Amino acid sequence: MNAERNNAARTARVTVRAVEGIGEIRPGDDLVQLIWDAVREPGMAEGDILVVTSKIVSKAEGRIVHASDREQAITDETVRLVASRAHENGVTRIVENRLGMVAAAAGVDASNTPEGTVLLLPHDPDATAQQLAKGLRELSGVAIGVLISDTLGRPWREGQTDVAIGAAGVHVIDDLRGGTDAAGRPLTVTMACTADELAAAGDLVKGKTSGCPVAIVSGLRHAVGSLDLPGASSLVRIGDRDMFRLGTDEAIELGRSEGHAEGFSVGYAAGMAAAQASGVNKPA
Amino acid sequence: MNAERNNAARTARVTVRAVEGIGEIRPGDDLVQLIWDAVREPGMAEGDILVVTSKIVSKAEGRIVHASDREQAITDETVRLVASRAHENGVTRIVENRLGMVAAAAGVDASNTPEGTVLLLPHDPDATAQQLAKGLRELSGVAIGVLISDTLGRPWREGQTDVAIGAAGVHVIDDLRGGTDAAGRPLTVTMACTADELAAAGDLVKGKTSGCPVAIVSGLRHAVGSLDLPGASSLVRIGDRDMFRLGTDEAIELGRSEGHAEGFSVGYAAGMAAAQASGVNKPA
Repeated sequence: MNAERNNAARTARVTVRAVEGIGEIRPGDDLVQLIWDAVREPGMAEGDILVVTSKIVSKAEGRIVHASDREQAITDETVRLVASRAHENGVTRIVENRLGMVAAAAGVDASNTPEGTVLLLPHDPDATAQQLAKGLRELSGVAIGVLISDTLGRPWREGQTDVAIGAAGVHVIDDLRGGTDAAGRPLTVTMACTADELAAAGDLVKGKTSGCPVAIVSGLRHAVGSLDLPGASSLVRIGDRDMFRLGTDEAIELGRSEGHAEGFSVGYAAGMAAAQASGVNKPA
Repeated sequence: MNAERNNAARTARVTVRAVEGIGEIRPGDDLVQLIWDAVREPGMAEGDILVVTSKIVSKAEGRIVHASDREQAITDETVRLVASRAHENGVTRIVENRLGMVAAAAGVDASNTPEGTVLLLPHDPDATAQQLAKGLRELSGVAIGVLISDTLGRPWREGQTDVAIGAAGVHVIDDLRGGTDAAGRPLTVTMACTADELAAAGDLVKGKTSGCPVAIVSGLRHAVGSLDLPGASSLVRIGDRDMFRLGTDEAIELGRSEGHAEGFSVGYAAGMAAAQASGVNKPA
């Protein structure tokens, strides 16, 4: 399967277009129907991939809470604290959330929401992507893929990029490890994260301010496949393979605490021995 | 400037196309001329952005070393070790390199290079992007932007995506902090890293195996600007703002060492005091 995709000629042209006409989303809205209404003219082609901003999924799911409950909402969405830092406007908390994303404020979002509210991430973005892909495949009659995207910061680089937090019918990773490069040598490490690159491409036309929540990427038919393909949750790397499970300050503090206890034991014994060995401390 | 860009309507359609016909690159090759030969028909439009794989820049610069010197090359490119982990095939070293990238193997690359060789990253990708943008603006007569892209892993997520390591004539960050969202509320945090999203979009058509090293992104004219704009080096976030300057294991070890020394001192004094306080240790 991978070899087949690797050997296929790469697409020479990809088009990313913004889907116009999707209005403000309210709790309970039927996203399949709303998106279909917006894309049915001129329609979708086999192999098109829809990139759907997570925000409208959250809104349809009614994942809206009062801004005054923001800190509690972040805590509720948090599995564990990865790193935190105090600054003049408060404390930035980088946490792992229940979706396995490592994100500032657990992904709780205060932009593009009604005044006085914040938005939680969707309940289960992979499941939503499945529903959307299934529904839109039925309505359109063509095999399309769906990604749910969210905006994420990164260590060591300024700014944020969009990544995929939900996926259905898309090869989220283009696993080149079985392939060879142009010189015929094995590509031993390369696993291109197609889903995140698609989400990033979608953001170029969706933007953050335009209120345009869906993009369609055309021209990557080889990236679309069965609805049984792994979702975006397969992109999460936490646990044993995670070399950055704590921020540096947090890890140093953990090590210091452990080291202090060890050092105390060793030092205590050494101090006692030294006292006993010194003349003034000889037993009477 | 930012407000102007923020208020402009977002582009509704972006096209990414692979540039065909650029052959194998040799040391000393004139990339401006080679790229121009490949793109002059049908030409470039005002606001087009070229995404150029770093590999061909490295090859033109002759940044090729024997594979047997790979470990030394990694060491030479390394500013500091961020994290390392032993595994069955050796040791993975995540390091900060001289460009400020935090990357496995310092970005030294063994794929798509002649047998028995590895490729170092370009000397100064921002400077190369400047040369390419200047040369191609002169030849084409239109204001285009240039990005140099490389493939980079990320903490917490599987797979790699392409990012920008060199840039000229491109607004690398779309700073939305001065803007407002669709509800009129300030976008306080959002800084979209347009350059990395463009690099990712370029990778969708360039791929790793096709030997197609350049993509052209059309339709984002607002992202192209003066050649005086900050380059990709402005995207590097290391130093005080870096919450992940060490891997977790390395930071714990550092903390443990410091904590052990502190604990030893405290324990030593406590042990001595305890010995002195106990009856058997009273001075004779």
